[in-house]
Amino acid sequence: MTLVGSALFLLPAAVSLCYGEYNAMRAFIFVAAGLAALSLPMALIKPKSDDMYTKEGLVIVAMLWIVFPLAGAMPFYISGEIPHFVDALFESVSGFTTTGSTILGDVESLTHGMLFWRSFTHWIGGMGILVFALAVFPSSKDSMYLMRAECPGPQVGKLVPKGKNTAMYMYSIYGVLTVVTVILLCAGGMPIFDSVCHAMGTAGTGGFGIKNAGVAFYNSAYIDGVITVMMILFGVNFNIFYFMLIKRFKDVGKNLELRVYIIILAVSTLLIGANIYPIYKSVGESFRYSVFQVASIMTTTGFATADYNTWPAFSQMILVMLMLVGACAGSTGGGFKVQRLIIIFKNTGKYFKKLLHPKSVNLVTSEDKAMDTDTVHGVHCYLGIYLFLMLSSMLLISLDNMDFATSFTSVAACFNNIGPGISRVGPMENFSFFSDFSKCVLSLDMLLGRLECLPIMMLVVPAVWKKKF
Amino acid sequence: MTLVGSALFLLPAAVSLCYGEYNAMRAFIFVAAGLAALSLPMALIKPKSDDMYTKEGLVIVAMLWIVFPLAGAMPFYISGEIPHFVDALFESVSGFTTTGSTILGDVESLTHGMLFWRSFTHWIGGMGILVFALAVFPSSKDSMYLMRAECPGPQVGKLVPKGKNTAMYMYSIYGVLTVVTVILLCAGGMPIFDSVCHAMGTAGTGGFGIKNAGVAFYNSAYIDGVITVMMILFGVNFNIFYFMLIKRFKDVGKNLELRVYIIILAVSTLLIGANIYPIYKSVGESFRYSVFQVASIMTTTGFATADYNTWPAFSQMILVMLMLVGACAGSTGGGFKVQRLIIIFKNTGKYFKKLLHPKSVNLVTSEDKAMDTDTVHGVHCYLGIYLFLMLSSMLLISLDNMDFATSFTSVAACFNNIGPGISRVGPMENFSFFSDFSKCVLSLDMLLGRLECLPIMMLVVPAVWKKKF
Repeated sequence: MTLVGSALFLLPAAVSLCYGEYNAMRAFIFVAAGLAALSLPMALIKPKSDDMYTKEGLVIVAMLWIVFPLAGAMPFYISGEIPHFVDALFESVSGFTTTGSTILGDVESLTHGMLFWRSFTHWIGGMGILVFALAVFPSSKDSMYLMRAECPGPQVGKLVPKGKNTAMYMYSIYGVLTVVTVILLCAGGMPIFDSVCHAMGTAGTGGFGIKNAGVAFYNSAYIDGVITVMMILFGVNFNIFYFMLIKRFKDVGKNLELRVYIIILAVSTLLIGANIYPIYKSVGESFRYSVFQVASIMTTTGFATADYNTWPAFSQMILVMLMLVGACAGSTGGGFKVQRLIIIFKNTGKYFKKLLHPKSVNLVTSEDKAMDTDTVHGVHCYLGIYLFLMLSSMLLISLDNMDFATSFTSVAACFNNIGPGISRVGPMENFSFFSDFSKCVLSLDMLLGRLECLPIMMLVVPAVWKKKF
Repeated sequence: MTLVGSALFLLPAAVSLCYGEYNAMRAFIFVAAGLAALSLPMALIKPKSDDMYTKEGLVIVAMLWIVFPLAGAMPFYISGEIPHFVDALFESVSGFTTTGSTILGDVESLTHGMLFWRSFTHWIGGMGILVFALAVFPSSKDSMYLMRAECPGPQVGKLVPKGKNTAMYMYSIYGVLTVVTVILLCAGGMPIFDSVCHAMGTAGTGGFGIKNAGVAFYNSAYIDGVITVMMILFGVNFNIFYFMLIKRFKDVGKNLELRVYIIILAVSTLLIGANIYPIYKSVGESFRYSVFQVASIMTTTGFATADYNTWPAFSQMILVMLMLVGACAGSTGGGFKVQRLIIIFKNTGKYFKKLLHPKSVNLVTSEDKAMDTDTVHGVHCYLGIYLFLMLSSMLLISLDNMDFATSFTSVAACFNNIGPGISRVGPMENFSFFSDFSKCVLSLDMLLGRLECLPIMMLVVPAVWKKKF
């Protein structure tokens, strides 16, 4: 695993070489060598048992997601481009978790190699570090347990019988869509380097830009349009693409989550478009900015073409609500997930009905199949954990004495892997003013949000570390 | 029922008479006469069936809670003391739901009769309009269904076999504690009128004051102390007092909700006390203001002795969290309730354990008894409804283009029946700047929060209105 990680650093090293940035290149190669050296003693430790279950899967994933961001922070730190270590770590965690929050006020001061690395972490983190390894490396074990831990959500489909094959299918779809994005962006006159970085940021629903002005820098309706459409696509459950490939269009049409996702996007776009019309004085402009921002926030990407801090409170509130909803389960997007929202709505509706007709039997259905009560129960518990962790983080962040909107949305934006919030963490701002303590809390939130709490929480449960599970 | 309501208006009329406020007196008598006249035709309508079930109980309670606040707004409006009708309605709803949010910038301009009426609505609303009627009037039917609808919470105990008796016990405890508060306040040098008003506001965990500066007007550590202690007592499940009366102290000690409630109060007081120490430069002062505000917010009373808008963000954030927690189930306080929090915590813990040990059987227990899954399920569904209604309201309120903290906490404060929020709805501010639309939304939130959503939501379900339930 660490060997795969080591190899990952060679790509940005190559980019640095192309641009003649030798200092950055040395940093990447140094980290790659370090990881490779570490992988040798680790390969000697033989696992006692070959069995992989939920618990082991969760622990492995959690460990990986701590080691990788740590290694990922090294190039920033060693090269001196982000001299403060906590900042470098924040940036790296933000990258891998596809959050896109940055502590950099001046992104353009970074070298090409570093910019590429930031966007590349989005691309790796979007589909999952482990799923990446599974797709690349041969593995004899059934790795569904690992995949489930990394891509949780209530509806992680097992597309094909073997975990490795599922991973390969997923990465193929992911890769093809990314390449399509690069081509479309280039066609719009965006330089190739910029296109690749933005395509990776879009694919992973990350949101790191390479210009201080963000996507607004290009000021092109075509580029805005391409990114909008691709963000929406990457926010869709990847099973949908698989179903389309094997021509099961009926399953696509029946998918309730997809329909709800599109309805929320459309309604939010209309409301914000109407609300910001007085600012832009043009229907076209209003909806161009509105649809981009709605798609960017709901898919948890976090790109910005407008400073929505200047929009009316109603539009900002819609964006905050979208932050809490998130994208579809099984997509690269984060957040609470549309699917969970649907399950809670349905279940609460049934509960309500039951109060009226105590003798009726009501099951929560998903695509005509009754959902087992364990899944429904799990979603409700997740809501509890989700709220508890977010509220606790807000309390900790408030020690920095920021205004309420900043404390609230910085946590919401990090936990749901979005990137920007409102007020002092708005789309044209950055996170550098936070204390080191807050940066660590926010980094932890990003990890908790990306892995949907469970794996990270497992690490602090003593029972997990006992020899006999 | 309406006849009882009519009688209620005679008390403030008498107060007005004492102070020679004839205009206010006329308004009260006019409303009393109007209600009495209305009650005649209503008495003629005979209910078709004598059976009372959950559903009928919910509908009756919801209707009552719409009729009473409407009637309660009339004196303000007719006397011209609150000339705008929506404002008068807001004030009345805020009174009956024991919220304590006001649209009055200058409370002291009201006549004594009106001030008494405001506080009196708190006292009636605290224990419940219907429970009041049950305690006063003879009724042959088992009225537990009605009581359950009005005092929901997951643990509404049936103290004694008959609903009417339970109501009487409850009101006796409530009345005695209120009188004790009046005596203690008078002993501290507070005028008798002020003492009665503040005692009623404390008992109902309402929060309407009669001075522009709030409780800070009296500037007495003794009065602060009395109100603090009484607020905390009124935030306790009334079953506890009953248990103490019948000397079942063991049940009191075993009560988990009580312990958690006290721990949350203590920890919050300590944290805020330490946090605001640099402002007051005295341990005594810091903790005097800290414990008062913590008790006031957590019990959802809403009195203030300090403008916590000037406190650091950390203290404000703790208060916002306390707003969301609320008091104990079965108390006069509102909010989500400590008991629900405990159930969600326990249940999520069990869920977590089950993931580790899939074969174990875990039941959520409450005081050594396993709780039925229906109750647990209901609490989780309530969390969903609670969040959904609060977030929707925030979205609607944001149309007024206030800052995020104002939009967020105005809804949180109204829905949880607290009173003041932070920022522009802080303890030294008022709600008058909101649009009529927002005032209506907030009034609805107060009702939804007070009745814990269900009865009000029932009114909009078409099936409820069909002849055959």
